[in-house]
Amino acid sequence: MTRDGGLVLGGMVFYPGGEHVTSWRLPGSEPDAYLDVEYYVRFAQTLERGGFATLFIADELYVWDRFASGIDHAVNIRTEPFTLLGALSQRTEHIGLAATVSTTYNEPYHVARKLASIDHLSEGRAAWNLVTSASDEEAWNFGRDANLDHAVRYRRGAEFVDVVQGLWDSWDDDAFLYDQESGYFAKRDGLHVLDHEGEFFRVRGPLNIARPPQAHPVLFQAGASEAGRALAGAKAEGVFTLWQDDLADAQALYADYKRRAVEHGRDASSMLILPAVSPVIGDTEADALRQLDEIEELTPDRVSLDLLSHYLQTDLSDRPLDAPFEHVFDETAINQSKSVYESIRRIAAEATTLREVYRTILRRRFLPGTPEQIADWLTERYAQDAADGYMLAFSSIPVSVDRFVDQVVPELERRGVYDRAYRGDTLREHLGLARPASRYDGSAAVPAPATVDQEASA
Amino acid sequence: MTRDGGLVLGGMVFYPGGEHVTSWRLPGSEPDAYLDVEYYVRFAQTLERGGFATLFIADELYVWDRFASGIDHAVNIRTEPFTLLGALSQRTEHIGLAATVSTTYNEPYHVARKLASIDHLSEGRAAWNLVTSASDEEAWNFGRDANLDHAVRYRRGAEFVDVVQGLWDSWDDDAFLYDQESGYFAKRDGLHVLDHEGEFFRVRGPLNIARPPQAHPVLFQAGASEAGRALAGAKAEGVFTLWQDDLADAQALYADYKRRAVEHGRDASSMLILPAVSPVIGDTEADALRQLDEIEELTPDRVSLDLLSHYLQTDLSDRPLDAPFEHVFDETAINQSKSVYESIRRIAAEATTLREVYRTILRRRFLPGTPEQIADWLTERYAQDAADGYMLAFSSIPVSVDRFVDQVVPELERRGVYDRAYRGDTLREHLGLARPASRYDGSAAVPAPATVDQEASA
Repeated sequence: MTRDGGLVLGGMVFYPGGEHVTSWRLPGSEPDAYLDVEYYVRFAQTLERGGFATLFIADELYVWDRFASGIDHAVNIRTEPFTLLGALSQRTEHIGLAATVSTTYNEPYHVARKLASIDHLSEGRAAWNLVTSASDEEAWNFGRDANLDHAVRYRRGAEFVDVVQGLWDSWDDDAFLYDQESGYFAKRDGLHVLDHEGEFFRVRGPLNIARPPQAHPVLFQAGASEAGRALAGAKAEGVFTLWQDDLADAQALYADYKRRAVEHGRDASSMLILPAVSPVIGDTEADALRQLDEIEELTPDRVSLDLLSHYLQTDLSDRPLDAPFEHVFDETAINQSKSVYESIRRIAAEATTLREVYRTILRRRFLPGTPEQIADWLTERYAQDAADGYMLAFSSIPVSVDRFVDQVVPELERRGVYDRAYRGDTLREHLGLARPASRYDGSAAVPAPATVDQEASA
Repeated sequence: MTRDGGLVLGGMVFYPGGEHVTSWRLPGSEPDAYLDVEYYVRFAQTLERGGFATLFIADELYVWDRFASGIDHAVNIRTEPFTLLGALSQRTEHIGLAATVSTTYNEPYHVARKLASIDHLSEGRAAWNLVTSASDEEAWNFGRDANLDHAVRYRRGAEFVDVVQGLWDSWDDDAFLYDQESGYFAKRDGLHVLDHEGEFFRVRGPLNIARPPQAHPVLFQAGASEAGRALAGAKAEGVFTLWQDDLADAQALYADYKRRAVEHGRDASSMLILPAVSPVIGDTEADALRQLDEIEELTPDRVSLDLLSHYLQTDLSDRPLDAPFEHVFDETAINQSKSVYESIRRIAAEATTLREVYRTILRRRFLPGTPEQIADWLTERYAQDAADGYMLAFSSIPVSVDRFVDQVVPELERRGVYDRAYRGDTLREHLGLARPASRYDGSAAVPAPATVDQEASA
């Protein structure tokens, strides 16, 4: 199914230097600028020049110091996403402003406020990417001994979304009168008290900010486990999926998410499937492959080994990287990302050493090619019901961002599947998503908890 | 004690329209702009033109719907402060960026990150105003049945500051190498794990952002109760006090805070006393008094009565405003602001009706006068050890902001007690406050929790 406005593009930052933990070592990287707002402004403005629907600041709530190599070689510093989005709201005009929110280590009242604020500050460009957080290190920063269990996290995530979206409907769109003459600032029947009591949250409300320009800032999600897909089917408006090497796998994944949305009574077009893709763009195919080799070569052995230990939740630190891969897979023992674990299981079935497993993990993250090849692949998947667009996880920033916008975007436009002109003002308009009605629309307004009635102003 | 650079000025927004809950009705107010970033940009840029050291976005975490008049007449919408400060960091050059943080309804890891981010985004201009939150309504938005007890809140607040400041020291100032050649991003011995375990918080750390430009964003506080003053003595770098009608009272308050700081081994100059002041600036004294009458007249009777009910935690809603004031004061029954309660007790001793009590409360908040009179009063208190500067709680925004900057600031400069030129780059430099050393300076570095040692990069 192709879309009216063509495919949509998003551009993300997780590690400030790019997709891999050691991307900061690549030529053209600017590791001493990772806390400089101008670095992100340049990123955002480049994406805007390329007509990207949204940028996305991914996030985590800890320092990866489980292994010494994490301190030595990884980028463990990042700006807090919502303060950064506030800054970027003033330096951009069109692009969506999305950030990760952990529903495990946040309170819905705070999150609803922040997103509503960003939506007001940017005139309708806010979005969030719901994650449930995967590391015990995060738990330790918030008074817990260990992360919540996977299933519990997802139940909490679903309830969290309900509360946040309910809070956004606290005030009707026309609740405010601002009538200086009469003294009435708001209409009493335009206010709704949520009074939520659930398994994880008790939140009375109302929210102390007007309904956002987009009503509900756009909800992205990336869960790939059964629990993650179930939540996406119910709630997500954009789904970041892992890139599938095989077109048929990508089509099956696409169909699975769309089916789940439809089963929840939603229109299939109300959920965009956006595979994450990390192109490595070369002047020739050989040049792209050489750049991919460079990413691999700049990754210290110790990092490869420690990342494997991390993903497998098994200490491999005393093993040489060239030792045989001998892990016994047991998904029930894993409380981090189950989809990453599963993908390693598949890779390990065809690899013999630890080095080979990590090398395959690393290389499969990237899509090396010429601008024309990359545009062809992205066009094919879009045309063949495997993607509504893509979330670009740039292999290096700023170099591969510039290359994508300058070299791949024109190729996509030439193929007639992309138009860099913004179609509207809000992120919802860029994505072709409807503005949600209030949950109180059409129902009798919930009366405000007034203790007394009263007449007009003195 | 007069200061090297003269008195310092800050400018606050609590209600977006100005100091009183009905300020939005005053002529020149712009109530439909309270969620428009340009409204705050204009505020910030006007203050910057006047050389203000900082702006301050006050905050609360609920809608004041305890009484219907709160919905009808009060301004219950506000932007979330930290997203707003992020935006303002890009639209201002010099002014400090401060916001309220409730230590009762936040997690220190999040707060440390946000403030560090604002400090990086603004190159050293971030500050926070610690509050412990006073309303049960706030508790209800965060899963609690009632607010924490006053004493417990303050213990939690003190521990919160310790954790946040400890997290800011997670990385030494020189911890980052960014060495693309060797592959070393950071020095292992430049990282410190907080491992905090206290009465209220368990936070392992480290923080995932570099030490802020100011090391520790500036800490403001406004507690006036015994518990509040004790916390200020230990921690606060700026104290917002209530305006005292009497100079001797203001001097006593000033001396009390300074004494407490000194008792904690601090230099008296490391804590600035900044009384809140709400000038009502008239072309003549009569004009100022007329404006003050206008504020009173624009306050509906119902609001006056309901605010009294709120402050006294007693339902007066069935009493006429002209009924006699008969409240039996019992400080132990109050779990909101104890200092507001105490000030009403003093007012009530000389007033007879509910109306008279509220009228006095309202009028005492404001300082009506000509620009010359106001400058004289501010100069006198500064010269006579009653203030190091002032936190302007503007009676109306934008009107009284413009008037203060255009009319009072030049008068202060003429009196030689104020200089609008910024003295440095960071808020600490504007305020004459030293950049704090790391708690790990000079001590043996806490080793990183490395599980393995390793050699240089592959």
